[in-house]
Amino acid sequence: MSHLTFSYHNVSLPTFPKEPLRLVQEKFTQKAYAFFDVLGDETLLAQVKEKTQALHENFTHFVVLGTGGSSLGAKTLCDLKNNPFGAQKHHVHFLNNVDSHTVEQLLNSLDLEKTCFIAVSKSGTTAETLCQTLCIMKALEIKGMDVKKHFEILTENKDSPLTQLAETYLITPLDHHKGIGGRFSVFSNVGLLPAALRGINIRALHKAAQSYIAGFQESASNNEMTHPALEGSFFAFQAMENAKPIAVMMPYIDRLASFAQWHAQLWAESLGKQGKGSTPVAALGTVDQHSQLQLYNDGPNDKTYTFLVEDSRQKGLLPNAYVYTDAKLSYLEDQAMGDLLYAEARATIDSLIKVERPLRAVAFKALDETVLGELLAHFMLETILTAELLKLDAFDQPGVEESKRLTRHYLTDKQAS
Amino acid sequence: MSHLTFSYHNVSLPTFPKEPLRLVQEKFTQKAYAFFDVLGDETLLAQVKEKTQALHENFTHFVVLGTGGSSLGAKTLCDLKNNPFGAQKHHVHFLNNVDSHTVEQLLNSLDLEKTCFIAVSKSGTTAETLCQTLCIMKALEIKGMDVKKHFEILTENKDSPLTQLAETYLITPLDHHKGIGGRFSVFSNVGLLPAALRGINIRALHKAAQSYIAGFQESASNNEMTHPALEGSFFAFQAMENAKPIAVMMPYIDRLASFAQWHAQLWAESLGKQGKGSTPVAALGTVDQHSQLQLYNDGPNDKTYTFLVEDSRQKGLLPNAYVYTDAKLSYLEDQAMGDLLYAEARATIDSLIKVERPLRAVAFKALDETVLGELLAHFMLETILTAELLKLDAFDQPGVEESKRLTRHYLTDKQAS
Repeated sequence: MSHLTFSYHNVSLPTFPKEPLRLVQEKFTQKAYAFFDVLGDETLLAQVKEKTQALHENFTHFVVLGTGGSSLGAKTLCDLKNNPFGAQKHHVHFLNNVDSHTVEQLLNSLDLEKTCFIAVSKSGTTAETLCQTLCIMKALEIKGMDVKKHFEILTENKDSPLTQLAETYLITPLDHHKGIGGRFSVFSNVGLLPAALRGINIRALHKAAQSYIAGFQESASNNEMTHPALEGSFFAFQAMENAKPIAVMMPYIDRLASFAQWHAQLWAESLGKQGKGSTPVAALGTVDQHSQLQLYNDGPNDKTYTFLVEDSRQKGLLPNAYVYTDAKLSYLEDQAMGDLLYAEARATIDSLIKVERPLRAVAFKALDETVLGELLAHFMLETILTAELLKLDAFDQPGVEESKRLTRHYLTDKQAS
Repeated sequence: MSHLTFSYHNVSLPTFPKEPLRLVQEKFTQKAYAFFDVLGDETLLAQVKEKTQALHENFTHFVVLGTGGSSLGAKTLCDLKNNPFGAQKHHVHFLNNVDSHTVEQLLNSLDLEKTCFIAVSKSGTTAETLCQTLCIMKALEIKGMDVKKHFEILTENKDSPLTQLAETYLITPLDHHKGIGGRFSVFSNVGLLPAALRGINIRALHKAAQSYIAGFQESASNNEMTHPALEGSFFAFQAMENAKPIAVMMPYIDRLASFAQWHAQLWAESLGKQGKGSTPVAALGTVDQHSQLQLYNDGPNDKTYTFLVEDSRQKGLLPNAYVYTDAKLSYLEDQAMGDLLYAEARATIDSLIKVERPLRAVAFKALDETVLGELLAHFMLETILTAELLKLDAFDQPGVEESKRLTRHYLTDKQAS
């Protein structure tokens, strides 16, 4: 039983075609989806737990050096517990850019003696991660610190600048699964290690995702064509066919803001190729009601919307007694903050339904590792199903090579710069 | 002389039509753009400075309670100096949602005795701001703290729930300019007070924006139709006419990530009406190269791109000596982190030029109050010029009323919830 309830509006979803589904089922059988096969892998869970215990003994701060798929999944998991208003014990920070101002702020803010850096790059060649790593190593060396002690390296077991660097500093690299690309790596050690360091229950996360995938497989093999992943991918596919090139993902819960970013990469990089795909927009309720809702309600009807809504009714802080004396505030009487958030989500959804925007709401009782595990599994499944509908390879990214080539060219050809 | 250099690619920009420009010039003459008229207002600057000095005497933390236009401009300014990795003295925090989990984390993290809350709502009726204010007041009361001492209220001088509340607690409200809507309020006390509290040079900011606007007016009255604001608005208008409904704003500098969010509201809420407008997407370089560039390069050609690029060459941290021993890392030899960031920006831009995406780059020497003032002024100007091209009122937002009505309905009608 899934903990997610999907409801669709202003769309009619035809039955999912048999052939694309058959291809997906075949790939499951062929173990082509390594990112799902790690679910429930006791060896992996035990390795991550052991490494976490060892690191907790020496460090209170952890900094993930990595970008894109090397950080967004882990950040999504850590945001379940990270405090945005100040570092707590076992806070996990993410450095995903090569903006020196930001990196210097981090180096000047943390107690470096109690900080461990975790450099993550599947290929071991990502320029940003290498540059971050080399600059931070230099900063630690200048302070006379032991680089080896303060660094973990998570990369594929093959010859690369990052494995070479690990060897030089006598750091034993953690193994990045060869068959799992960055944007699909949230359930591998790439997502799990930072999550476990932050105190996320990674076993519950895995269990929920595994059960969600098993539910899908069972439903598909019974020829039940109404599974939410099938409906969801058709919802997306149909929108692309019908001149709705923009897909808004709008959680009504701060802790899922990173989830929307994670999804944006998964969606854009898996499906944005050969002139196909739709453009993901990560929004946040209620914040973007005050920023984007005018456009959503009254601008071009060129978008689909996915709302993620926790049932926050009767939860959270309560207003002070003043609301009982001002008639204009009577609508807040006996309401917790969670009541307002929930009412705002419903109001946004209903106002968009009224103006005939195609949308869906994903409702759940309370956000925790189980719900997050299901959400991640659902949207990974939906992405690979949509790729089959679009006849695309979800796992390559041919469109970024030119930019990588040019970066190196501009750096090394002094005349070009 | 502006500090911004604009360059356009894969577009041909016809001369800006005379009539829309005449309408904008007329509105300048009629003082219809109050948000520009405050620039250089010595009384305003002195009031903000005085209030800042008084608050600095008692508090080390400031929390802006407000959403949308009440917070995004101020956040954009504060991000010039706020440290994302931990609160420093005179840190300005922003609470823009009614997610109780987030608000409770803030209340549990800050030293409340040294914290001042600033509730900002032009109308004094914004449900989120009222709910935040009332819940935090209750939390302070429970701790036995003096609510009056810890609160500032910034709102229009008129009867409203927020002015009533101020009266009850004997708080003297700060005056929100009646003629300046939230999303255009960055140069008023809404933006300036948090900025000054954070230590931003608000006089330099004003001076730069004022000079940018004066330059535009002079250029327009001389019938020079090549000002960047005229070209920029035609670039946007043309894209909407030519099936490019998505406008990506991608700064290559972390401190401008909030700027892209500020711009997204300005753009969406001013122009997204009557079925018109384009959808802003806030991206961040290099981060979104690893998330969205595949889609940008190889997906549908349905976007325009605006890149904001600081000349970060030869600036920032340096890699350690290891780069000289690994041939695969020779491209990082003698390169600072800023060289890599700059090369990545150029590479992304050039790879998109090559695949014929319409784009522009806005280059500047170094981000400071002067450059930020010009950027804000430019994009406000561009937005009102684009509204004239689209024959829209940039200053209303009719599309959000239904959602506000429904929120109150769901809260008060128990049967509906």
